[in-house]
Amino acid sequence: MKTAYGLKVRTPLGMAEAEAEVRELLAGEGFGILTEIDVAATLHEKLGITRSPYRILGACNPQLASEALDKEADVGLLLPCNVIVYQDGEETVVAALDPATMVHLTDNPALAQVAGEARSSLERVIDAMPKEGADA
Amino acid sequence: MKTAYGLKVRTPLGMAEAEAEVRELLAGEGFGILTEIDVAATLHEKLGITRSPYRILGACNPQLASEALDKEADVGLLLPCNVIVYQDGEETVVAALDPATMVHLTDNPALAQVAGEARSSLERVIDAMPKEGADA
Repeated sequence: MKTAYGLKVRTPLGMAEAEAEVRELLAGEGFGILTEIDVAATLHEKLGITRSPYRILGACNPQLASEALDKEADVGLLLPCNVIVYQDGEETVVAALDPATMVHLTDNPALAQVAGEARSSLERVIDAMPKEGADA
Repeated sequence: MKTAYGLKVRTPLGMAEAEAEVRELLAGEGFGILTEIDVAATLHEKLGITRSPYRILGACNPQLASEALDKEADVGLLLPCNVIVYQDGEETVVAALDPATMVHLTDNPALAQVAGEARSSLERVIDAMPKEGADA
């Protein structure tokens, strides 16, 4: 599923299983996780409000990040590539920021190739996630 | 200075001083730092290449983030708001992702107010950074 700015899937996996699966798939594409934010815990701690589970992982393929920085110094404003995992009723949503937004926002065509490579990798990750009704 | 996707300033401060200053200014606007990435160290470790100092801070105002998530579940793909600090010759560049990109990318007008508030805060932060030739 493609949204305006994300590559997205709904999976019957629980939060923990979905996160473990997407981390493994990302690793297979050369993406490490540099940052992680437990949004629900952070908002509970800071504001005292309760939200359903929501996590943000900062995924980075060092080779692609380095190439992007060579072509656009400020592209760090759009790195690492966020991958969100959140509970939505009985399902878990997993989505990655579409790297095409990097070219769109910077209006720098020199980023097209590296963004295209990152996008292909993340599409494979999202496509490989177990989906509703897809269990054999 | 406004780029296509960032609010940006060049300062005569060194990296460490610029980062300390922007963190204090962000705190004054209710933004905590949830993540930090030493880009130069990460790329050196992973690829063995040497880059000039470059850091990415993930800044978050919990109240604004919570409001944004209420209006657009997937907006975590664009959170936290990145603030970059990097060395560029004799100067240090400090830039924040322009929250207006949030409305632009999601095409969700319900985010306009919260993005506008975040943008005003970050503009004040960037405007308050010491600039070249601005020392009394």
